[in-house]
Amino acid sequence: MGPHPAVADVRRAVRLALADLEPGDLVLAACSGGADSLALAAALAFVAPRAGLRAGLLTVDHGLQEGSARQAAEVVGLPLGLDPAEVLTVEVGAAGGPENAAREARYAALAAAAGRLGAAAVLLGHTRDDQAETVLMRLSRGSGTRSLAGMPARAGLYRRPLLELGRVTTVAACAALGLTPWEDPHNLDPRYTRVRVRERLLPALEEELGPGVAEALARTASLCRDDADALDAWADAVYARAAAVRGVPSATGDCALSDIPPGVPSVTLAVPELETLPAAVRRRVLRRAAIAAGAPPGTLSAAHILQVDRLITAWRGQRRVEVAGGVGAVRRYGTLIFAATP
Amino acid sequence: MGPHPAVADVRRAVRLALADLEPGDLVLAACSGGADSLALAAALAFVAPRAGLRAGLLTVDHGLQEGSARQAAEVVGLPLGLDPAEVLTVEVGAAGGPENAAREARYAALAAAAGRLGAAAVLLGHTRDDQAETVLMRLSRGSGTRSLAGMPARAGLYRRPLLELGRVTTVAACAALGLTPWEDPHNLDPRYTRVRVRERLLPALEEELGPGVAEALARTASLCRDDADALDAWADAVYARAAAVRGVPSATGDCALSDIPPGVPSVTLAVPELETLPAAVRRRVLRRAAIAAGAPPGTLSAAHILQVDRLITAWRGQRRVEVAGGVGAVRRYGTLIFAATP
Repeated sequence: MGPHPAVADVRRAVRLALADLEPGDLVLAACSGGADSLALAAALAFVAPRAGLRAGLLTVDHGLQEGSARQAAEVVGLPLGLDPAEVLTVEVGAAGGPENAAREARYAALAAAAGRLGAAAVLLGHTRDDQAETVLMRLSRGSGTRSLAGMPARAGLYRRPLLELGRVTTVAACAALGLTPWEDPHNLDPRYTRVRVRERLLPALEEELGPGVAEALARTASLCRDDADALDAWADAVYARAAAVRGVPSATGDCALSDIPPGVPSVTLAVPELETLPAAVRRRVLRRAAIAAGAPPGTLSAAHILQVDRLITAWRGQRRVEVAGGVGAVRRYGTLIFAATP
Repeated sequence: MGPHPAVADVRRAVRLALADLEPGDLVLAACSGGADSLALAAALAFVAPRAGLRAGLLTVDHGLQEGSARQAAEVVGLPLGLDPAEVLTVEVGAAGGPENAAREARYAALAAAAGRLGAAAVLLGHTRDDQAETVLMRLSRGSGTRSLAGMPARAGLYRRPLLELGRVTTVAACAALGLTPWEDPHNLDPRYTRVRVRERLLPALEEELGPGVAEALARTASLCRDDADALDAWADAVYARAAAVRGVPSATGDCALSDIPPGVPSVTLAVPELETLPAAVRRRVLRRAAIAAGAPPGTLSAAHILQVDRLITAWRGQRRVEVAGGVGAVRRYGTLIFAATP
């Protein structure tokens, strides 16, 4: 008799996610003790030795709740057969709200531990339901395809093997394995946006639009990721060409850029290369140029880029357009110049 | 003293939407008598003569409600100064649900009347709020960027000047002009998906995610439209090149396609042209080929295209992949052939 179907599904997903690793590589499961990451860790413990891999576990004590240290100790004490199994204690700041601050502290600790232990990959237990929640939260920001792409299945050290499985599968897998998941009280606290999305919005969407909304949102994420990747590749190619054509000013000066002092970072783009591009690609190229000239990506809005775009599509001798972080764009005949205020 | 700001906003939007028309052109407003299309029709009546255009009004009597004929007669009787002003009486079928059937009957009648009257454009009163509802409904289908792009500002004869204005503006404009909008009882009937989205889901999203969700959804639509347009342009260019390289079989036969009888429509694509493309572009090219070979667009799912894609990305000698409408794809060495079952 084989394993329970849910257990088999989780193991298969983990096996596929690790297929490219080398024998002897160390893989770490990030595990809070909740159903998703517990099912993930158990699957890793099963799959890794059969694939010639070493497998360990990391759990993060955020220190935000009574008894969090005890809970973390329980997770590393689970008899899953994962070694090393470590508690990472972090201090959560306040920047960007409680969810952001906890996430940043957690990822920093995971990355540091992975580096120290020489891990080839860190597995995260996000499921299709988490992906749907992410897409819904980002949708309300109106920030486009890349944002709707949600969480990637891979990014650097991190891998998310369970993105195509529902939470119902991880819960069933834990039950079938006799593992009791920890119920994080934060997962029911309506002060968190994600909790409100999970507990109120997704059920409302299912109620009004019919079942399968979470799957549809996750599918949307995947399609948007492919679209965003393709457009980024196009924009990268154009940027490399259009920016190379004109070069950047050297310390000895450049006649077209003579009013930009030496040492001020600047990027020039050839307008003729941009004029014939679809708007979606042209704006991505402009964004690259602004960032290369020093505009901080986080403060660079679509509205800024639209204003710069009008230097190309609605040119009537406009003055310098301020972008972000002191960087602005000016047009000189057939050249667009991004530079910080001298 | 100028007009009320809401009236000015609607007029400005209509003026911009008509800027490319020729003097003497006829523009028709499709008007149900509701706030959106009533504000639109009033703005058209103001703007058109000042722009040298002729302006008329069409209203559709769907015959679905008690008194619909009287309501339609009231709309054409409004003293807006639009001429011609016609009632179009339609019969609504049942295919695809009540909303779909009514929409299809309405657009068919509008197109026929525009043709008969020689109109250069038909204006539709959809606002940013309608766009947000559309995006939310489509999101639940998980069908990608083009679907999330929502309603276009222009498509053939149709123009939607109010897509960037909120419903609050059209309501205010009607009030300022002393026009009493008709409240369609269907707009409150929760049997309609759009009504549930408007009355329940959008308020729930605003409640849980914060204000501005409708604007964010409309912005998402606009960004997704630009992205989808750019990717379609890329796929069109590749399709033209890759399909031209191999041609289509002629009635005299073609050695690579010798088992496709003369007369069966088929499309061939050069695999090397496709292999290096980003997935999002490659799948769009495959979709074009399948449709050109006779697959009905409406029944062609992303899952079908994914299966065909594996003939390129995971080639291990697979057999013919059935697509839709009897069309299938086979790979012969470096060629992908789409053809109907002989």
